[in-house]
Amino acid sequence: MDLPSDKPSLSEPAATAKRAGMTDAAKSPGSGPEARTPRGFIDRRARDLVAERAILGAVSAVYERYGFEPLDTPAFEYADALGKFLPDADRPNEGVFAVQDDDEQWMALRYDLTAPLARFAAQNWETLAKPFRRYAYGPVWRNEKPGPGRYREFVQCDADTVGSARPEADAEIIAMAVEGLQAAGVPAGSAILKINNRKLLNGLMASAGVTEDGQKLAVLRAVDKLDRLGPDGVRLLLGEGRKDESGAFTKGAGLNAGAAERVLAFTAAGAGRAETLSRLANVIGGSAEGDEGLAELEAIDRALASLGVGADRAVFDPSVVRGLEYYTGAVFEAELLLDTLDDKGQPIRFGSVGGGGRYDDLVARFTGERVPATGFSFGVSRLAAALRAAGKGEAAAARGPVVVIVFDQARMADYFAVAGELRAAGIAAEVYLGQSGMRAQMKYADRRLSPAAVIIGEDEFAAGAATVKDLDLGRALSQGVTDNAAWRAERPGQVVVPRAELVAAIRKILDSQL
Amino acid sequence: MDLPSDKPSLSEPAATAKRAGMTDAAKSPGSGPEARTPRGFIDRRARDLVAERAILGAVSAVYERYGFEPLDTPAFEYADALGKFLPDADRPNEGVFAVQDDDEQWMALRYDLTAPLARFAAQNWETLAKPFRRYAYGPVWRNEKPGPGRYREFVQCDADTVGSARPEADAEIIAMAVEGLQAAGVPAGSAILKINNRKLLNGLMASAGVTEDGQKLAVLRAVDKLDRLGPDGVRLLLGEGRKDESGAFTKGAGLNAGAAERVLAFTAAGAGRAETLSRLANVIGGSAEGDEGLAELEAIDRALASLGVGADRAVFDPSVVRGLEYYTGAVFEAELLLDTLDDKGQPIRFGSVGGGGRYDDLVARFTGERVPATGFSFGVSRLAAALRAAGKGEAAAARGPVVVIVFDQARMADYFAVAGELRAAGIAAEVYLGQSGMRAQMKYADRRLSPAAVIIGEDEFAAGAATVKDLDLGRALSQGVTDNAAWRAERPGQVVVPRAELVAAIRKILDSQL
Repeated sequence: MDLPSDKPSLSEPAATAKRAGMTDAAKSPGSGPEARTPRGFIDRRARDLVAERAILGAVSAVYERYGFEPLDTPAFEYADALGKFLPDADRPNEGVFAVQDDDEQWMALRYDLTAPLARFAAQNWETLAKPFRRYAYGPVWRNEKPGPGRYREFVQCDADTVGSARPEADAEIIAMAVEGLQAAGVPAGSAILKINNRKLLNGLMASAGVTEDGQKLAVLRAVDKLDRLGPDGVRLLLGEGRKDESGAFTKGAGLNAGAAERVLAFTAAGAGRAETLSRLANVIGGSAEGDEGLAELEAIDRALASLGVGADRAVFDPSVVRGLEYYTGAVFEAELLLDTLDDKGQPIRFGSVGGGGRYDDLVARFTGERVPATGFSFGVSRLAAALRAAGKGEAAAARGPVVVIVFDQARMADYFAVAGELRAAGIAAEVYLGQSGMRAQMKYADRRLSPAAVIIGEDEFAAGAATVKDLDLGRALSQGVTDNAAWRAERPGQVVVPRAELVAAIRKILDSQL
Repeated sequence: MDLPSDKPSLSEPAATAKRAGMTDAAKSPGSGPEARTPRGFIDRRARDLVAERAILGAVSAVYERYGFEPLDTPAFEYADALGKFLPDADRPNEGVFAVQDDDEQWMALRYDLTAPLARFAAQNWETLAKPFRRYAYGPVWRNEKPGPGRYREFVQCDADTVGSARPEADAEIIAMAVEGLQAAGVPAGSAILKINNRKLLNGLMASAGVTEDGQKLAVLRAVDKLDRLGPDGVRLLLGEGRKDESGAFTKGAGLNAGAAERVLAFTAAGAGRAETLSRLANVIGGSAEGDEGLAELEAIDRALASLGVGADRAVFDPSVVRGLEYYTGAVFEAELLLDTLDDKGQPIRFGSVGGGGRYDDLVARFTGERVPATGFSFGVSRLAAALRAAGKGEAAAARGPVVVIVFDQARMADYFAVAGELRAAGIAAEVYLGQSGMRAQMKYADRRLSPAAVIIGEDEFAAGAATVKDLDLGRALSQGVTDNAAWRAERPGQVVVPRAELVAAIRKILDSQL
């Protein structure tokens, strides 16, 4: 088998040049490249990663429990396969990172996980067990203008069912989103799944006499702003138009007053799912597409009830539009109700941490045959940020290893054996490998958030003992979490234990809560 | 906080155009794009991913136990930060996937995880707790000519210590590689870590009178071919040159016969680590750099012994060169000794599944200051392929969910409740959501590798019962793994159980081994 070597191996022609180039750079301080992340990209360290991995693990477990199998598609797709479903992307390759391959074909980094799934399903349709249920997670890339908190690379985690037109497939996706939020650590009552159906919106527009595509879109956009502008603002946008605070005028959808009121009435949800449905029946009743949408929502309601998902966790909300043009039926949005604080300490609504819906036309782009599909995408980076901002998930913060202090350079082998012993007991541990003295080593251990430091000097070696310094306690004391006097009796900051009891002494510190 | 929405939301200008474009494609079968992965990229499904994740999880756990913290750098780096350390890459951006940003700066996808670490360390050097110990995993990209089994995207998993010049830091990296292989499922005795030191090679060349860079490189290349060509072939390459089977002539390093024999003597390892070191001392003794390399290997040997890593798992092998020019001291290579079969059923040596070494100059590219560093990289995709080819890790193969058959369309809510009950018990389960009949549903369940199907029809509903079909048994019988008669008595292919005992009946199938 001729797999590529994972690190490049020695090759004939270029090596000398590279070697020379490298040596030059190393020898010329100041002339080297600047060390910086590209615009809109960030490095992520332990705290972020521990939180993200916990979310991915928890949500994946939910997806798998529902019978979804993992799939990993490449970072690149051919540009034509990705399509142009990004906003503000009229020109080819706009909004995505694209490269032209040697054979002149354009490839682009995936901007979501849905487009690659549609390509995969079309490519393998004949041989897949259908309906095809897959989940996926990984980074996606958007070639957009970066800004504060706006990154060009972020992580999504999706589940999709391809090949089922049943509303129950939508219900299942919704139930998974609800359970996924819970599994990810969002407290009960702190998130809500909002459900709508594009067919209702279409039915409403038909009954309001809106048939032209441009006008339909203007109506959808107006409804989409309900959260931000309120009914009065939306009423203006449904009618002639609206002037914002800056004086800029947005042309409206041009509905007459009656039609506009009808749309506004439509967007008002009821108390429970059943009540919302009966209200909607009154507003859009009569349109065939609207009735179809209603029937689908009714089936979704029944299936959600069978799955134990009540109106406290998933509601029908007729004001939900969801931007992507490719949705053809039910649409979902996961909204976080957690109170979070922004960088200035102001309370903010975090809003959407995921969404999805039914898209029955995406696979048809390739095959020409309509294939029903539905799915949901968690914005994992966003959800992690929300949980962190809300002070949740801090318990998962990365804890450092036990640090074995190098007191005597000649005893490295002994220190290594101590670290090895701790690791064998499942305790993360390391020997300090820098060149600094005791004080710097203790500071290092503290910065690594080590629970404890192990010090074995001449006396300890002679006595077959080890000194264990409780750094968790030290941090707690210095942060005022606990006070010195109360703890000193039962939890001394430093103990000398027989060498054979070292693991037990460390475990005692690890197991105790401050 | 103004985070980007994770799915694109409705935007003003482009929506109509997109909508139109999409509808066109959906309406014109045959005119759509072709569904295919880009050249050199592959989709990976459950079996591959389960194996890969198991390796990443196991190796990460080892790294964490050694006190290494996770770090995730972006997919992109500025091209100048990545440098040009790829083979056959004389032109800028050759060998990497590069895009030019709006501000004219060139960015490229990382080709390994070491170059981004060097950039990160240089960028954050002042504030890092030092030595900085980090591990990382993720895809890397090479813009190379794809071929059978040669992919342009693959997964690496690295651990590096930046800021320690101690040979013990190298030893620790080696010990983690050894433990990582074991944790990943490589059986004892089926892998070996080979260790060498560039300083020995340099010392050898100094004592052989080789001082010119080009000649040094020719010697290294010759030694690097020992595995493939044997001593006789290498002898020719160390001397005037060698003609291969095709008649092509490779110019040699031009050493005289005595010097060539000295190099060949150098490459012969001894029985144990200590013996190899004493042999090497005889060959290269006298050169200052060679002596330094020897002393480092001696310290590595001592530290490995403290960590319980014997010569059965890590050896000194003076023939190991490792291609990358940036190595400055110890170099490591993990070689798999598993017997594997190629696609034609021929036994093959899988060879290297990872490597690394000491690179004390990489951070200096940015800062001008030499920062000692050492690390190891697992080729995860390659290791997973090796384990699979060797028939290991099949136990981790993805198992499908229990499939609840839809016998009666009117009973969907009941079927959903059954699936929910199984999931609540931690059992992956799904209701069949296609439109097909019983036979197709059973076939679907079988293709999903479901352990069991649950059938509840009119009779079962009336009796408060459920029929459980043992699909694991069915597959075992059809594959001849077990024979019909022996099993039928104690393990019937199908049982009717009271509804309240359904979970227990399924668990019995899941827990049993065929």
